[in-house]
Amino acid sequence: MTQEQHLIRTANGTASPAGPGSVRRANLSLVLRQLRDHVSRSRADIAESTGLHRATVSNLVTELLHRRLVREVGIEHVGAVGRPRRAVALHGAHVGALGLEINVDYISVYGTDLSGRVLVERRVGFDTMGSGPERSLRRLGLVAQEAITAMKRGGAVPAGVGVAVPALVDVARGVVTLAPNLGWHDLPLAALLSSALGPLRVPVMVDNDANLAALAEYTSGVAAGTPHMVYLTGEVGVGGGIIIDGRLHRGADGFSGEVGHLPVDPAGDRCGCGRHGCWETKVGLAALARKARPELAYEQPGLPVSDPEERATEIARGLADGDPRMLETVAQVGRWLGLGGAIVVNLFNPRVIVLGGYFATLAQWLLPHAQAELDRLVVARPAIRCRFAASDLGFGAASRGAASMVINQLIDDPMTLMDQLPRPAAH
Amino acid sequence: MTQEQHLIRTANGTASPAGPGSVRRANLSLVLRQLRDHVSRSRADIAESTGLHRATVSNLVTELLHRRLVREVGIEHVGAVGRPRRAVALHGAHVGALGLEINVDYISVYGTDLSGRVLVERRVGFDTMGSGPERSLRRLGLVAQEAITAMKRGGAVPAGVGVAVPALVDVARGVVTLAPNLGWHDLPLAALLSSALGPLRVPVMVDNDANLAALAEYTSGVAAGTPHMVYLTGEVGVGGGIIIDGRLHRGADGFSGEVGHLPVDPAGDRCGCGRHGCWETKVGLAALARKARPELAYEQPGLPVSDPEERATEIARGLADGDPRMLETVAQVGRWLGLGGAIVVNLFNPRVIVLGGYFATLAQWLLPHAQAELDRLVVARPAIRCRFAASDLGFGAASRGAASMVINQLIDDPMTLMDQLPRPAAH
Repeated sequence: MTQEQHLIRTANGTASPAGPGSVRRANLSLVLRQLRDHVSRSRADIAESTGLHRATVSNLVTELLHRRLVREVGIEHVGAVGRPRRAVALHGAHVGALGLEINVDYISVYGTDLSGRVLVERRVGFDTMGSGPERSLRRLGLVAQEAITAMKRGGAVPAGVGVAVPALVDVARGVVTLAPNLGWHDLPLAALLSSALGPLRVPVMVDNDANLAALAEYTSGVAAGTPHMVYLTGEVGVGGGIIIDGRLHRGADGFSGEVGHLPVDPAGDRCGCGRHGCWETKVGLAALARKARPELAYEQPGLPVSDPEERATEIARGLADGDPRMLETVAQVGRWLGLGGAIVVNLFNPRVIVLGGYFATLAQWLLPHAQAELDRLVVARPAIRCRFAASDLGFGAASRGAASMVINQLIDDPMTLMDQLPRPAAH
Repeated sequence: MTQEQHLIRTANGTASPAGPGSVRRANLSLVLRQLRDHVSRSRADIAESTGLHRATVSNLVTELLHRRLVREVGIEHVGAVGRPRRAVALHGAHVGALGLEINVDYISVYGTDLSGRVLVERRVGFDTMGSGPERSLRRLGLVAQEAITAMKRGGAVPAGVGVAVPALVDVARGVVTLAPNLGWHDLPLAALLSSALGPLRVPVMVDNDANLAALAEYTSGVAAGTPHMVYLTGEVGVGGGIIIDGRLHRGADGFSGEVGHLPVDPAGDRCGCGRHGCWETKVGLAALARKARPELAYEQPGLPVSDPEERATEIARGLADGDPRMLETVAQVGRWLGLGGAIVVNLFNPRVIVLGGYFATLAQWLLPHAQAELDRLVVARPAIRCRFAASDLGFGAASRGAASMVINQLIDDPMTLMDQLPRPAAH
């Protein structure tokens, strides 16, 4: 083992000594990250970029080839005089990541392999609140099993399942601490779903839906790669995911980005949480529906559950028809959206606020009002300009981000997840 | 040059190749950080913790000894059987850092050497707004020159001057973009002060006062070392400094933490910035003074300028005497403080909010109301608990943080600043 293999730098830039196992894990991860961030690389490129010895890189690449996480991609010619070099790239067509989202009135599914091929993508309507946690979990387990079966047919075994929930989540333990809009609290979702998947023995990770949607946006959305970015979910509830310096910001306990209950109007309406004037009462889909089309409001008993995309589409039809009451309601919501955006910008100074969920569906009507109000209220204008941008990932962003979480985990610590998969024969 | 010297890890954990000069700079910085974070260390300890070769560490330590940034501190005995090892520690008694703060009605000065010895500490009343930028800068230059003279008498030459300003600051260029409470905008403060210091040729760095106070709190305040922490200044204006994962969060443009103008009450009073219901109109010292003791209010022309500490002390006397109007006013301000705190906690999830300026002076009256309101409004309660804590650094926190900024700069990149100092004879 060479000298530099003992060196693991921690997040704050200091170096700490580490045992041989963790060093190998970290170095495998370094190599995989190189391949994630480039189409293909030669072993020499990897050695140069990571500072690892050539021999170490060759050894690591051999292990990854054996696990079929990378593959040889032929010869790279560098410049006119450079000698040709054999390059490798991410492979992993047999390794999958399953992302799920369970929300107020739907379950979303997004299954992919490590190379980015989409194996399953669907959304099913489901009344989570009305069904209670037990039946909801049974349904989620069935949907996951169907997706895993479909992924296996596509040639990939999921290395893990990520679940997005509109909730405060204790990420380390996989417990849903509080999900007001689902009626859940202190639910050990990871453990329950993992045991529902039974003999499949797939590790389950849970996180907040807005955090995971933000991750999906950072990975592949309209503002992909923007280091300082905030994502806002427009659903029945409103959540936020915060990317700082290219990483998801979780805060001291993993509960950052709780924008829905920002107190923005002391004289405002009572919120579902019991407080008054929460931002969600101004910009949540339930609030919009109640004002724009009282006959669609969520509170009315006996109405069948339809999903937010349908509701948003219905409202969009009214707006396209020029319904004056709807236009004025949406203008109001747009201004409140701008006000909440200004709070976010004054505190975080992001470059972009990506709007998801129904905010994206109604973007053409909401954005002009929201942007004008944001610009008016941001104190550092004109020195800074933050723009709103509508997500193009649709209502599936959180399940896509849940799959990204599994892939990130696989890349950060390839062996822990891989050791649970059947080891394939070397090709 | 050994293999691992070529390895510089960047903030996001990836490694990038670097030239020999930057590698040496980074390694000198690694060694200095080890000595900042420990009372003393042997060369072997440093080699083990940094992953650098013994020979490399010896060479770096020799350079730092020659520059008198570190000193030998004698023999360390490790365990019963370990052989004694010569340890080194930070020295730098001849290298100083000068911190200044220019605020609405005072200038603060804090001069220290690298070993932490305080060489100069004072505050002078000064009417910055009334004096205009030119006279203010002249005064700041004179105060800085006096401080530098005093530091030199104490044996230390300042390697840099840090300036804290209640403003939006373009840190990279040292320009004050906008300081509403000083009446400044687009003022190239670093360049102007540097040329006012003339032949002294001391580099000048500028940052927002709340950012620098947060840095001082993180370095040596009541919550020192807390990785997720927010600092709030209670002055005429209200600012915020945000520590995330142990680092100052600046955002995309360096304008994060602008809490003073958070829109918290659509029906609220008009703010100095022209908007309505900004948080500053609820919790700023001017607002408090206006409500508690109209005869002290800032708007009244002809009143002599006194500094915020005096005003706060005056109000504290009234509270101690049980003045009912003041007690009710401070209770109201405390509740608004809790509401703003809840916005910060819902978004950032810090562990502690440190209160500086007049908030600290009046802490015994403000905190119970603020904490109760915070607890009521934080959505993730009881899963998370963030506490308010009163700063004990006094009104000088920002100037102390300005000195810390210079020391951090010196530790991050020792040669750039040191090369501007006269090279001392080796001792």
